[in-house]
Amino acid sequence: MRGKWRAGVLGGLLAAGSVFAAEPAGKFPPTTAEILAAAPAAAWRPIPAENLLRMELGDGRAVIIEITPLIAPRHVANIRELVRRKWFDGHAIVRVRDNYVVQWGGPRDDRAIPDMVPTQLPAEYERPLKDIPFTPLPYPDSFAARTGFADTWPVGADSQSIWLTHCYGTVAVGRANAPDTGSGIELYAVIGHAPRHMDRNLAVVGRVIEGMDVLGALPRGAPPQGNYEKTAYIPIARIQGYAAGDAGAPRFEVLRTDTPTFAQYVKARANRLDPFYAKPAGGVDACNVQVPIQRRK
Amino acid sequence: MRGKWRAGVLGGLLAAGSVFAAEPAGKFPPTTAEILAAAPAAAWRPIPAENLLRMELGDGRAVIIEITPLIAPRHVANIRELVRRKWFDGHAIVRVRDNYVVQWGGPRDDRAIPDMVPTQLPAEYERPLKDIPFTPLPYPDSFAARTGFADTWPVGADSQSIWLTHCYGTVAVGRANAPDTGSGIELYAVIGHAPRHMDRNLAVVGRVIEGMDVLGALPRGAPPQGNYEKTAYIPIARIQGYAAGDAGAPRFEVLRTDTPTFAQYVKARANRLDPFYAKPAGGVDACNVQVPIQRRK
Repeated sequence: MRGKWRAGVLGGLLAAGSVFAAEPAGKFPPTTAEILAAAPAAAWRPIPAENLLRMELGDGRAVIIEITPLIAPRHVANIRELVRRKWFDGHAIVRVRDNYVVQWGGPRDDRAIPDMVPTQLPAEYERPLKDIPFTPLPYPDSFAARTGFADTWPVGADSQSIWLTHCYGTVAVGRANAPDTGSGIELYAVIGHAPRHMDRNLAVVGRVIEGMDVLGALPRGAPPQGNYEKTAYIPIARIQGYAAGDAGAPRFEVLRTDTPTFAQYVKARANRLDPFYAKPAGGVDACNVQVPIQRRK
Repeated sequence: MRGKWRAGVLGGLLAAGSVFAAEPAGKFPPTTAEILAAAPAAAWRPIPAENLLRMELGDGRAVIIEITPLIAPRHVANIRELVRRKWFDGHAIVRVRDNYVVQWGGPRDDRAIPDMVPTQLPAEYERPLKDIPFTPLPYPDSFAARTGFADTWPVGADSQSIWLTHCYGTVAVGRANAPDTGSGIELYAVIGHAPRHMDRNLAVVGRVIEGMDVLGALPRGAPPQGNYEKTAYIPIARIQGYAAGDAGAPRFEVLRTDTPTFAQYVKARANRLDPFYAKPAGGVDACNVQVPIQRRK
């Protein structure tokens, strides 16, 4: 599609933007950009330095991941320890499957898994609903009884349980067939349409908050699974973590999901009505809400 | 994640696949692969040569698109004419926005739009529901009253109308702000999570049936809109069409969506239960059904 932003490319031909200029003020509800610009500082929460991981590829490009112990605390503790022990440093991206996942790490003959780290963890795919504050999304979902948000994270829920959903950019733990075979030595990030069938079947531990433009554009491996040949592995220089309060850590903030501002934002996402969109859907899925995350000024 | 297919990479460490081998026969329902392998020939329909477009990039890589006049026949007729008039030959991919779209063509100062082609067409975003045979999907949707399939295409519907949905790989027509400013001279393909808010707001004309591994991995343009600098445009050598019955056209077939085989396939997609997936979602969205399309043998 092409909105007013394409005026430069369009030249004078289609006079993009003229419709916008002609609209009477007040015809359209606030846009998401206007809602965010007007949001009070309290509508945002900083992302703690200790929940950030910085993955640097061999070519110097960086990917920033926020991890959360919300649903899979033992897996996240394992990952923190693996990062401290430099398990991922000098490792590689080993798989890129189109419309699915980028995957990195994993067992290798030439690398001993740090012996402090359990190589198998019990499944941590969901938790009791009563344990976690939940803001439901007021629209139906194709995969779960309900969806919504918990502490800024998109979640699914039924009457008993709550779990993190697989959305574009979600980071989770690879495993073999048995549920207790994941450890965190191998991770993946979603690079396509939300594979929500993976919800409750794998341990979700985080999300990419910067650098999806890097991961999403990596060359795809051979179909059907996208595994790279070893000669095509993409080197990871390192994954580093940060101590709490580390002044050198990247500074991000995320829009809180338990506020009137967020409710207004969701409503605007579900009911786009502006010079470009004439027919609002009247709904939105939990992944397409796209909780705003930004670098702190 | 990592299923039995990763056995080669895993080596002996986690003994991937052993769980599978130990499972008693008959524990799991048929997989989608088993359903497709058992499908009768009549469950598939060939894709007519005249509905195929082959886009060849400057580096020789090819993308195959199936077009459909189902909802936007005048736009599709325009695109056929533009292809015959070689509008896209020597043009370029001008925009790649992460988790959104790849866009190509468009007005350029150095290129006259073929004068046979209308530069503005009336909006063709939906049609009366009664006009098009519709197979509903038995799961709720976040964006539409109902979703389902029409002649193998994912669609949304309400009590009056039916329209094509924006899924990964969907091809549609760029336009300026006013609904009647699209013509087909500029097209886009979805490369991220389904942007379903675009449904009923833009003219959907087709889907990429081969080559999303190429389009999906193109370098992203500058945020927020992903427009390339002119010096970074990715050349399109040509887009060619085919005459009906052209023996030299690529041969594809698509699984019909009005058959018992397809109903069984959808049920298996919604209820994955196998050595890797222990907890079925019990639902699936129209985009994640991923209607099977394959090269004909």
